[in-house]
Amino acid sequence: MVLEKLKHVPDPTYVQQAPLTEFISNLFTAAGMRPNEALLCAEVLVDADMNGIDTHGVCYNLDLHYLTGLMNGYIKAQPDVKVTYETPGTAVIDADQGMAMIASVKAMELAIEKAEKTGMASVAVKNSSHYGAAGYYARLALKHDMIGFSMSSGGGRVIIPMNARYPWMGTNPMAFAAPAGEEPPFVIDMASSMTSYGKVSIAQAFGVDIPEGWAQNADGKPVTDISKRSEAIGQPPLGGKYDTGAHKGTGIGIMADVLGGILPGERLSGMMMDNPKGGRFCHYFQATRIDGFRPADEFKSDMDEMLRAFRAQEPSLEAEGEVMYPGYPDSKYVTKRIEQGVPLPRHTVEYFKKMADTLNVEFSI
Amino acid sequence: MVLEKLKHVPDPTYVQQAPLTEFISNLFTAAGMRPNEALLCAEVLVDADMNGIDTHGVCYNLDLHYLTGLMNGYIKAQPDVKVTYETPGTAVIDADQGMAMIASVKAMELAIEKAEKTGMASVAVKNSSHYGAAGYYARLALKHDMIGFSMSSGGGRVIIPMNARYPWMGTNPMAFAAPAGEEPPFVIDMASSMTSYGKVSIAQAFGVDIPEGWAQNADGKPVTDISKRSEAIGQPPLGGKYDTGAHKGTGIGIMADVLGGILPGERLSGMMMDNPKGGRFCHYFQATRIDGFRPADEFKSDMDEMLRAFRAQEPSLEAEGEVMYPGYPDSKYVTKRIEQGVPLPRHTVEYFKKMADTLNVEFSI
Repeated sequence: MVLEKLKHVPDPTYVQQAPLTEFISNLFTAAGMRPNEALLCAEVLVDADMNGIDTHGVCYNLDLHYLTGLMNGYIKAQPDVKVTYETPGTAVIDADQGMAMIASVKAMELAIEKAEKTGMASVAVKNSSHYGAAGYYARLALKHDMIGFSMSSGGGRVIIPMNARYPWMGTNPMAFAAPAGEEPPFVIDMASSMTSYGKVSIAQAFGVDIPEGWAQNADGKPVTDISKRSEAIGQPPLGGKYDTGAHKGTGIGIMADVLGGILPGERLSGMMMDNPKGGRFCHYFQATRIDGFRPADEFKSDMDEMLRAFRAQEPSLEAEGEVMYPGYPDSKYVTKRIEQGVPLPRHTVEYFKKMADTLNVEFSI
Repeated sequence: MVLEKLKHVPDPTYVQQAPLTEFISNLFTAAGMRPNEALLCAEVLVDADMNGIDTHGVCYNLDLHYLTGLMNGYIKAQPDVKVTYETPGTAVIDADQGMAMIASVKAMELAIEKAEKTGMASVAVKNSSHYGAAGYYARLALKHDMIGFSMSSGGGRVIIPMNARYPWMGTNPMAFAAPAGEEPPFVIDMASSMTSYGKVSIAQAFGVDIPEGWAQNADGKPVTDISKRSEAIGQPPLGGKYDTGAHKGTGIGIMADVLGGILPGERLSGMMMDNPKGGRFCHYFQATRIDGFRPADEFKSDMDEMLRAFRAQEPSLEAEGEVMYPGYPDSKYVTKRIEQGVPLPRHTVEYFKKMADTLNVEFSI
């Protein structure tokens, strides 16, 4: 399995959560951000690393999005994030082309605050940037005994819709989080493609060939030899072909464009990158009170029962690993990485050294 | 493509929407239902046929669920459907083991009514039966300029989670509908498996072999020879294998179990069928006001623009059909079937004749 291979960072440098967060925060501050907002962004990114979501941590997107964006000016270092429209259960926030985490945490917190009063609420964010791991925001609902949901659109044309020749939309992810009592929470965090863009980037960094369905050329043929990644023009949707559900992955991707794109009043994911300057991503956040339906303690106790029974299933003779529910492996990663730190690949350490030098920040990790 | 083959009913009998609805309604009434509720259920089912969703119309589920259930007594003919819990933006409805459409239409209408006041709202339904096509309920939001969403859990153990040996959950569908102005609306209506249970049943009825991923045996191997369907113990989730996203399909299936199962306080989809008597399905419905974010007219105009651009994409050299968004083919079916009627396969006509005879109903189609 390719996904398993991508979990093993070759020649890693292990760095603990706190110093890693501080270093990343210092880079963002040096790039012009306000220190408290820089720290928030660093915390969101390192949280992904702690949860084993290496694609959305500090290793790949500082160069591709965040630090490059801040230094080139297409991400505004000190944005004026504000609520532009509001009803009891809905709102729109303008991210002012800043780092997406600032507007996104504010949006999810506003959805939670509104849901306290109405039972459920949602907030859409426009004019934003790459928000990291979608699951982070959905998980913010958990400690309030709420169910969290988030989608994001943007990032340019990456996904090739079913039957189309060229890519049309971003990898447009969906996240859903529901709390349990004693068990790790149930958390979906999935791109609407067969795999995330970041997984293909990790495969390239590690020199690992990729399965059919991860990349496609202009003739509609799969690209599997990672050394030929440049021939790929995009990625197929989850499902791959029509008979195996490509219309479903395509549909989930469009759903993100509707909720986190057209709803807050922006362009489509595939068109956002054409903005000469400005927001290249939009997002959607939703919170639902569990006690709008039944006592949260009973719900969480039933979740425990379900999640334990789920994990206790007999494995298939063809099983490629344990029977696990989404969210469970993340919690195992947190335990492991609290102990050993986050494994950074060599190219990341080198990039960090270069950026520390460029931005005159101490290389403290 | 197998899905294309399943669209062509061999030796069809064409019946128009109105007489088909009346006949089905008469069968339900003869089985003990109140006439107005029988008509509602028939309308929901025939609507699926009109939209080309043959799996969820009148051809397969009367025998598997509805009429058999009414006649055997595990679906209550005259249920007492009531709201058991309510807040401004949420509610729970007890379907009282009746035909699911009664409680489900009431639930979606209640969600819409609540959303009028709060911006968005959701209603969960417990103790129910098979609700037909999920998209029907999501589409109810459209004429109110709202976005509709629905999930359902139940129906016994059909889907085999990633790495598990035996099936655990139902095909647990997700539906999402957003209005456009002049274009047909965007409507997702998808099982969380690679295909619906009903598609496998149609393949069996038509004698069409099925693709890998539609059915699996106890050794974890695919069953593709439809004459060996009895060897299949279940269906893999959307994604198929880990590298191609099986954890995503599994996750969407569990999400339905959480929203349309644990949230309204019932058992899991895979366990509901173990109820000696009683509800075998639960559902979740959600409505969101578009003008909670921006004027609905502007939203719908932007949807038109997106959906037109989507369809205008250049097709792939490997394309298996037109570039279409979910919901578009449905609208084409409506046009076609208003003209020519619903194509019923021979086994359905024979079953209808038998049931008309058994229930002393005129075979009027």
